[in-house]
Order: sequence, then structure tokens, then C-alpha cells
Amino acid sequence: MSISLNFLLNYIHSDRDIFTALQNGRVCTAIRDLLVDHVRASDLKIDVIVGLDARGFLFGFAMAAELGLPFVPIRKKGKLPGKCHSFEYVLEYGSDILEIQEGSLTSGQNVLVIDDLLATGGTLRGACELIQRTGANVVDIVVIMELKSLNGRSNIPFQNIRSLIAYD
Amino acid sequence: MSISLNFLLNYIHSDRDIFTALQNGRVCTAIRDLLVDHVRASDLKIDVIVGLDARGFLFGFAMAAELGLPFVPIRKKGKLPGKCHSFEYVLEYGSDILEIQEGSLTSGQNVLVIDDLLATGGTLRGACELIQRTGANVVDIVVIMELKSLNGRSNIPFQNIRSLIAYD
Repeated sequence: MSISLNFLLNYIHSDRDIFTALQNGRVCTAIRDLLVDHVRASDLKIDVIVGLDARGFLFGFAMAAELGLPFVPIRKKGKLPGKCHSFEYVLEYGSDILEIQEGSLTSGQNVLVIDDLLATGGTLRGACELIQRTGANVVDIVVIMELKSLNGRSNIPFQNIRSLIAYD
Repeated sequence: MSISLNFLLNYIHSDRDIFTALQNGRVCTAIRDLLVDHVRASDLKIDVIVGLDARGFLFGFAMAAELGLPFVPIRKKGKLPGKCHSFEYVLEYGSDILEIQEGSLTSGQNVLVIDDLLATGGTLRGACELIQRTGANVVDIVVIMELKSLNGRSNIPFQNIRSLIAYD
């Protein structure tokens, strides 16, 4: 890995907008490499990368392509073609429905879930529960940025959560 | 490039759903490599990859990371943080508004636009017009799948359009 996390931090501006950082091509490569290195350095055997619509798509597919792993999307209701598993999850105000395509995961597969941001953790928790219902196992959760003050980890019933950058 | 287009075609099922194909890790790598090879083999100097929400995010960021180029998103109105340029474009029924972040492109930059599908071409046309308004130049448009019967190319005022797979 040629580019450090400190380098990356310099490109995440005070508005914490990941898209601003991606305007630098070296940052795009650095984020991809950090994520791939995380998987390669891990003792966990990952079978599938699951990315959350839409920013999880950015990083999830780039990881899958580099690692030669399947990529599977989770989207809001009505956005995926074919038959889907659905899961309604409760947010602070109201609820939402996430979907994953039937047959996209098989029982016993080890899944890494990726999204851009861990805030309150509601969507990530919903995604994990949806994945568990397919019989696959959530073994690793990775986000680019974590807002620690919102304590999202406490909402997610999985301990293995890694953020590249954590803000107090 | 180790994997051919014919290999890729075998994984695009009759429903023409790209997500089904991405359930094979070798396909993820093959698509990324085909896209990157296209840019490397081209005489065009590409400065920025622009990906359309949400499936263009998959392929656009993977290209940007591999090529060391900036990645810039185009999304529907209200989905991007900060100040944005907007462009309302007319579809067969009604209209829609696309946005790009102010300052994400600079005048004179050469842009490659990527999305998963070229159907009627309405959204791609709107995206190209939005990019032109920033002063940047659309020099290359790449999609994974093209539905030729819908004649989308005739709706897009740019000639340089490449599809990995074209269906009659």
C-alpha cells in the first residue's frame, strides 16, 4: 500500500463528503487498496461482497473486481429486478424496506458488507438482518467513515466492524 | 485481458440483468478489465470518469481506482451534498432533474461517462448536456449493455459510444 490513511484524511473535507475526496484519482486508488488489503490481511475467508445502494456500490464492486469475488447489491424496495427477499426495518422516524435478489447468496457463505458511512447504523443493521435470513453469514462490516458520536455500533448485532476513518 | 467477451456473455442471463452476472467473481474482474483496457487502448486522454447513479457507480469507481483518475457522480436531484449544477431533461413521459456537484469538473477536462445500460438514451443524453454546461468535454461514453432496437444512440449528440455487449 503506497498511500497512507493520513493522506486520505487530507482529502476528506470538513463537510465529510466522500465525493469531494474522490475528485483526486490517487485517493480513489488508495481507498480501493486499503479495502482490498483489509480483506487480504484478514483471517476471515470472504466468499461474497455485498454493497449497499448507492455509495456502497462504488467501493463494493471495486473490491470484488480486484479480489475476484462475487458482488451482490442491497437496494431499497422496487429497485432490483426479479424475485427478491425483503426486510422491513425500523428507523428513528418510520421504516423502510430493503431487498436482495433471491439466489444471490447461498446458505453458509461468508459475507463482507460495505457502505460509505456508519452513522446511526439503522440501514446497516437492516442489511445484516436481511443477509442472515438468506442463510449466509455476515462476518465482516466495512465502512469508509464512522461518526462515533452517533454510536451506530451499538445498533448492529455484529462485532466485526471496521471503519477506515472514525470521527469523534 | 484473460477473459473474453464471449465468456462474459454467458453470464448475462436472458433477463439481461447485470447483477446476475456479477454473482461470478471472475465476471466482476473481467468487466473491470475490459473497461480499463478500453481506456488504455484509446487515443483519447481521459481526465475524469463520471458515473451515473446507481449502476454507473459500480463500474465508474472501479475504473477510476485502477486508472488513478478522479471519479465524479451524477445523481437525481437532492441526492448530492453541497452546491450542485442542475439540468432538467425530458423523458418519454414527463421530465427529470440530474445534478453534479459544483467544482467537481473544470473547464476543458476530458470526461468519460459510464452507465450500465443504453436503452432510449434519455438519461445519458441529459448527463452529457449537464457535463457540457460545466465547460468539460464529453469525449467517451461507455455502457455495459446496449439495446439496439431502442436506437438510443440517435438521442445522444455524441458519436463516441462504446457498448461491451449489444443486443439486436
